[in-house]
Amino acid sequence: MTTQTIFEQIQLKKSFLCLGLDPDLDKMPSHLVASSEEPLFDFCKTIVDHVNHLCVSVKINTAFFEAYGVVGFTTLHKLAQYIKSHYPELFLIADAKRGDIGNTSLRYAKAFFEAMPFDAITIAPYMGKDSVEPFLTYKNKHAILLALTSNEGAADFQLKAKDKEVLYKQVLKQSQNWNNASQLMYVVGATKAEHLVEIRKLVPDSFLLVPGVGAQGGSLRDVYKHGANKKTGLLVNSSRGILYASNGEDFAEAALEAANALQQDMKNLLN
Amino acid sequence: MTTQTIFEQIQLKKSFLCLGLDPDLDKMPSHLVASSEEPLFDFCKTIVDHVNHLCVSVKINTAFFEAYGVVGFTTLHKLAQYIKSHYPELFLIADAKRGDIGNTSLRYAKAFFEAMPFDAITIAPYMGKDSVEPFLTYKNKHAILLALTSNEGAADFQLKAKDKEVLYKQVLKQSQNWNNASQLMYVVGATKAEHLVEIRKLVPDSFLLVPGVGAQGGSLRDVYKHGANKKTGLLVNSSRGILYASNGEDFAEAALEAANALQQDMKNLLN
Repeated sequence: MTTQTIFEQIQLKKSFLCLGLDPDLDKMPSHLVASSEEPLFDFCKTIVDHVNHLCVSVKINTAFFEAYGVVGFTTLHKLAQYIKSHYPELFLIADAKRGDIGNTSLRYAKAFFEAMPFDAITIAPYMGKDSVEPFLTYKNKHAILLALTSNEGAADFQLKAKDKEVLYKQVLKQSQNWNNASQLMYVVGATKAEHLVEIRKLVPDSFLLVPGVGAQGGSLRDVYKHGANKKTGLLVNSSRGILYASNGEDFAEAALEAANALQQDMKNLLN
Repeated sequence: MTTQTIFEQIQLKKSFLCLGLDPDLDKMPSHLVASSEEPLFDFCKTIVDHVNHLCVSVKINTAFFEAYGVVGFTTLHKLAQYIKSHYPELFLIADAKRGDIGNTSLRYAKAFFEAMPFDAITIAPYMGKDSVEPFLTYKNKHAILLALTSNEGAADFQLKAKDKEVLYKQVLKQSQNWNNASQLMYVVGATKAEHLVEIRKLVPDSFLLVPGVGAQGGSLRDVYKHGANKKTGLLVNSSRGILYASNGEDFAEAALEAANALQQDMKNLLN
């Protein structure tokens, strides 16, 4: 999917919402866990079926599937295929944090872009250029580099510098010179909205994937104010705030309501 | 598995060899690919059955399995279980390069330490302390942090510094203060043997996982000279040099011969 298509979807849906799927059996509706033979799939499918029209992207957190071994991985494949075949207009992200030497990254690219129908994958940039470029050899596929994350540990290395150039800025700057850099996007934690101004100076045209609005804190208005570019350039993720809006029989309606509230806020900002 | 047990195995086997399993259908013996219903499994099993007595560790590169979708992931599980149940003395590493916010890292820990029987997993440290510590809450399990890798891209960030403290040294230093840091190990590329002296100053007691001897270049003697500590503290990996020593009917014997040559070199160094 091209970034132009994503932008058109944003305009059409008046939304830059990314639905994050981090399905947790302990937080899911107990009636569904008890009755379903495939609770991870059924839960995610129901949520997506209810809120797809309110979001432009879906981000699947692979760890929440891998934790259940082969069954979980099989569900991950099935879910990705279900979403892509029923909602091809949704920008489908594997939140997988992969990245390795070129030869190995190429295998991860095959896993997520060929064996599964993802449009993008999140990547830890620690190993540098040749660990990322294999993902960018796929036309209209995207690598979303971790730049500045929203967790506490972001302070350990990302924000460290002996001089004035902190690591996450090095990542932003350098990666813009890599082959097919137009297919790069960046993860930027919303709890660091004050950094967005500087980030936009370094990567004016790139889409930013912003987790941390909702359950992790962070203000949507601030993110939009400092992070939007002329093609919006933002995918703001919400996972738990939508998925677990209710854990009763009304979970799908509650999810719809939560997603709708976010989309309304986005619509107001986009106008 | 404790590091003491690894050390005892090193003394017993006169080897600090880690066998890397990166099975590639294009490089595997064509007769096996043509005749086997599970070529990835059968190839790896045969290699491990032939060389297990010459190595103390096996490192499975997860990407080479994930690339084949559900079938590949199922094989990954089966292979890990096969190795752990038949050769429990081998230190079993998932070369998976995971790492995410704490909540998600905990899921990856479940995937590799509970759903699968790995003793250790490689981790990209970009997201800092809270992305790594969940792995260390498992007793006698290990997180192997990427420190200085052997690929070209290592120059992009790991070796970058505006002052004298390069990133990979920050990773080594800081991580030693994290909870359960005694369960940390580090990936250090053998092609950077000249850095080993400095690395040993920063992490004198930690095991180092050293890829890049063999196919990627790098001298075993140099690695041992500069990297060994009083409990050896080294796991030197060889993948392609053993796996693809021959792609004919004699591939297992050729693998045995290649592993044997490496083990003999290690024996000489250990004496």
